[in-house]
Amino acid sequence: MKESELRQMIDCAMKREPCDLVLTNARIFNVFTGETEEGDIAVKDGVIVGIGTGYSARTYRDVAGRIILPGFMDAHIHVESTMLTPEEFARLTVPHGTSLIVADPHELVNVCGIAGAEYVAEAFARLQREGVSPLEVLLQLPSCVPATPFETSGARLDGHATAEELEKPTFFGLGEMMNYVGVIAGDAETLEKLEAAKRLKKVVDGHAPGVVGDALNAYLCAGVTTDHESLSAQEIAEKIARGMYVQVRCGSSANNAAVCAPLITEENNGRFLLCSDDKHAPDLMQKGHLDDALSRLVALGVRPLWAVRMATLNVAQCYGLRGHGAVAPGYAADMVAVDDLQHFRVHAVWKGGELVAEEGRPLFSVARYLPEAVRDTVHVAPVTADSFRMDIRSERARAMYVLPNELITQEVILPVRTKDGDVVLGDDLNKLAVVERHFASGNTGLALVKGYGLHGGAIGISVAHDSHNLVVLGDDNAAMARVVELLRTAGGGMALVCGETEEVFPLDVAGLMSSASCEEVAQKTAHIAARARRMGVKEGYDPFMTLAFLALPVIPHLKLTDRGLFDVDAFRFTTTEAEE
Amino acid sequence: MKESELRQMIDCAMKREPCDLVLTNARIFNVFTGETEEGDIAVKDGVIVGIGTGYSARTYRDVAGRIILPGFMDAHIHVESTMLTPEEFARLTVPHGTSLIVADPHELVNVCGIAGAEYVAEAFARLQREGVSPLEVLLQLPSCVPATPFETSGARLDGHATAEELEKPTFFGLGEMMNYVGVIAGDAETLEKLEAAKRLKKVVDGHAPGVVGDALNAYLCAGVTTDHESLSAQEIAEKIARGMYVQVRCGSSANNAAVCAPLITEENNGRFLLCSDDKHAPDLMQKGHLDDALSRLVALGVRPLWAVRMATLNVAQCYGLRGHGAVAPGYAADMVAVDDLQHFRVHAVWKGGELVAEEGRPLFSVARYLPEAVRDTVHVAPVTADSFRMDIRSERARAMYVLPNELITQEVILPVRTKDGDVVLGDDLNKLAVVERHFASGNTGLALVKGYGLHGGAIGISVAHDSHNLVVLGDDNAAMARVVELLRTAGGGMALVCGETEEVFPLDVAGLMSSASCEEVAQKTAHIAARARRMGVKEGYDPFMTLAFLALPVIPHLKLTDRGLFDVDAFRFTTTEAEE
Repeated sequence: MKESELRQMIDCAMKREPCDLVLTNARIFNVFTGETEEGDIAVKDGVIVGIGTGYSARTYRDVAGRIILPGFMDAHIHVESTMLTPEEFARLTVPHGTSLIVADPHELVNVCGIAGAEYVAEAFARLQREGVSPLEVLLQLPSCVPATPFETSGARLDGHATAEELEKPTFFGLGEMMNYVGVIAGDAETLEKLEAAKRLKKVVDGHAPGVVGDALNAYLCAGVTTDHESLSAQEIAEKIARGMYVQVRCGSSANNAAVCAPLITEENNGRFLLCSDDKHAPDLMQKGHLDDALSRLVALGVRPLWAVRMATLNVAQCYGLRGHGAVAPGYAADMVAVDDLQHFRVHAVWKGGELVAEEGRPLFSVARYLPEAVRDTVHVAPVTADSFRMDIRSERARAMYVLPNELITQEVILPVRTKDGDVVLGDDLNKLAVVERHFASGNTGLALVKGYGLHGGAIGISVAHDSHNLVVLGDDNAAMARVVELLRTAGGGMALVCGETEEVFPLDVAGLMSSASCEEVAQKTAHIAARARRMGVKEGYDPFMTLAFLALPVIPHLKLTDRGLFDVDAFRFTTTEAEE
Repeated sequence: MKESELRQMIDCAMKREPCDLVLTNARIFNVFTGETEEGDIAVKDGVIVGIGTGYSARTYRDVAGRIILPGFMDAHIHVESTMLTPEEFARLTVPHGTSLIVADPHELVNVCGIAGAEYVAEAFARLQREGVSPLEVLLQLPSCVPATPFETSGARLDGHATAEELEKPTFFGLGEMMNYVGVIAGDAETLEKLEAAKRLKKVVDGHAPGVVGDALNAYLCAGVTTDHESLSAQEIAEKIARGMYVQVRCGSSANNAAVCAPLITEENNGRFLLCSDDKHAPDLMQKGHLDDALSRLVALGVRPLWAVRMATLNVAQCYGLRGHGAVAPGYAADMVAVDDLQHFRVHAVWKGGELVAEEGRPLFSVARYLPEAVRDTVHVAPVTADSFRMDIRSERARAMYVLPNELITQEVILPVRTKDGDVVLGDDLNKLAVVERHFASGNTGLALVKGYGLHGGAIGISVAHDSHNLVVLGDDNAAMARVVELLRTAGGGMALVCGETEEVFPLDVAGLMSSASCEEVAQKTAHIAARARRMGVKEGYDPFMTLAFLALPVIPHLKLTDRGLFDVDAFRFTTTEAEE
């Protein structure tokens, strides 16, 4: 901002010059006091310059007594998890009042390296018109690339590289430090990353399920500010007391609003934030984003003032965003018009003083940006039906048992028999394969899965937290090989082979996201999931999204990576052959 | 902090290594939740690494069930107003629990220029031992040097110089922007300063008495964050609603705790801070510092949690001081042991894990630092008794009437007569002279003062807000000349001439502060004030400190500068001669 712009704002505030925009007949919700004030809101150069009456302006907008809130901020989200491009994400969320997100491109960077983060930054930046973006993005540098040493990801950011990248203005802070085990153990490379954040005075987000007591103290000494991964109410209370900002997670799979709501008090409400973490496109379309979370929190008994602060002022305070999070003079003119503080139905959204959405429709156009770095990312060594043979040399086998509506698996020991050098399936037994897809190394992990219910073919997906290799489940080796081939040629996606039927929904951006519209993504993912359901996948499992977590070796108890079957509890590889 | 230190903290938190210090049997007050928790506090490398039990340490300290609070922070203070050097200020305040101050060396810089600020920075820095200072100082760059164009100060920082200085790490932010008139008017030089702060993302403190409505909006657009100068409860409420942090002023002359207390609510308590602004050494010695303010606030009905936050967490949030303001892992080990949350009697104080005060005694030694730049600052052109002749050429004269216990003056029109080219005094009429003392220019302003009560000589002082010229009041020209000479040879101070009696208390540091101990300053200022009182100065006026504000041309209604009599309401110079 130039000096002359400061003067222009002051001139507008003093009514010596006309403003750019005046919202009239507003009921302004004050996050500092909890009161609602009637008046007009004057805007100049993207900043609120006054609250009062009698302003002149180039544009007037009568908001007809609607409540004006500060723009909503999501304290932690992986945009990739929507399977939408940044542009589509903005098109979908901005009409719901979202005006800022703290985005952690953890998945993209695990596939594409730093180029993945730069793609997100650039895609969002291209939404700008005259310096104003409908959606402001604070990009966190993923702290765990790869997430674990037990799998092959597309990139590796060691301590030194992380420290170097973090110096760039591209990155606001360090993304969720999932390797809490490494922090607590004092792992040198992990500390190098945290030390860099400390030196650069950049915020560090946390991810510390079950970390309490001494371990929590140690984690906090390392400089972590936030957390969204508690396993119990007691754990959340402890984290609040120890000074963490707790991000209440209102995601598609994980949602702890009901656990958090009773914990939010007059004393501590300033220490809670809202976040989505992982949210799917259909959810965003059908239910909304932070508007939905606000409505849910209030329904759970949280005082509206506290809920609104959790999506506005508290986020600004946690991340040190001066001039954000309130409707007040000198603050960014990021505003949302709603009917009430109960349903939070969003009628209009302003970002930097620009009307960017109205009655659910975005008022900005997007041109798709798809750089080379995020395209054509699926590289697999040739596979055949024989690649999926499992010549199990024991009478009992260790299998993964998937629990309905859970990301964790259980280990089960089953009697098995083989024929012609391959395990005989049936009785609700499937094969699971994780095929390395970044370097065409041919690494393939094979395991048995019990309880999924699929029969008559195979399904597969290239989204597989956190390294995003290909995960294929089936009862037919040839179909599994075909699924890999379909995914390879599509550049990633979701694929299904059932007899003669072949379906594929491409996730052509890094194998994680679709370049299609949000409507198409929602419709086609629903379609292919329904088709997979007809192959017998049981209720309680999302056919594809459940698969996406079977390769994540940090969630108990038994998982599969491209390097083999992993016993999360013992924190080491194991075998399908069960000795006893 | 080196990476290895991060590991050491983690090792201590995990009880793998002994800590530096463990406070046992603590009742830890939690500013996040308002609860009090019993346990031990473990410290390593100046940082709290854990709260719990079972820590091993090099040093244990049983705090015997005392309440442990975070170190107190003063959000706004002019150290010079104590008349103590920074070292003495620390010696006096640290035992009262003060662990951080946001200091604005406005007076020093108006006398000595930037060298005055550098002196404060260096004097405080020299208190450090092994990197830990008993008192942490965030230095604000004075924004108004000179405070007005109607007087001669020792230095001038224009917009460009201010912008340049503000880039230095010496300065945390921009000091109180008193020139709110300039801000609101869009004065170019003032905006240049504010623009620099905005560009550098440095906080700007405010000073805006009576600024409400459009003017307040404009002032906030300029980027001002705080204020401590409201004239009414309604004004404070408006400033809170518009997003300012309001600093409750608990100073020696100005104290609005009683006005603020009823305004502090469950909703807005996070937006109030404590500050001293101007506090005198005797007050600090007899009553205390923020401990006294806390006790007073609680007595006024403010909930202890809110009061404590106002001196700890809220200050940290306002100024963006991550890792300050709470007793929690990862936070600076700045702690205060008190008996209760009612009287806040301080027993022990730790700063960065070092015990720096105990039972009222500082546990650090100070070596006085007095650079050339702040010594020998009083330069006056020769004066004689004739310099104070007032040959008033009208029958009625305009005089300043000082109100008891107020900084404002009233204008009175009196009949006067002259004899031998000088006004005839008597009937409770005195002469007031403001003698320029920075450049020996000979500039002298003369005026009449009614109601002070002094007779039989003259008194004078080199503290005179904000330009700190010599202010001399008397009824005897020769005595006034002698007072100037006494102040000149002492390098500034307070002086008194009454018949044969001559007394002077030197303020040898910039003419503002004494290099003596706080005990001596308190004793000698009390002595000379008592001696002046015996010359007839009425109750309700502090003989010297009231003088110090008679030259401040921003407080209504009639003031005197070295350039003449100033009508604050009309904002222009006027004459002693009254036409009507």
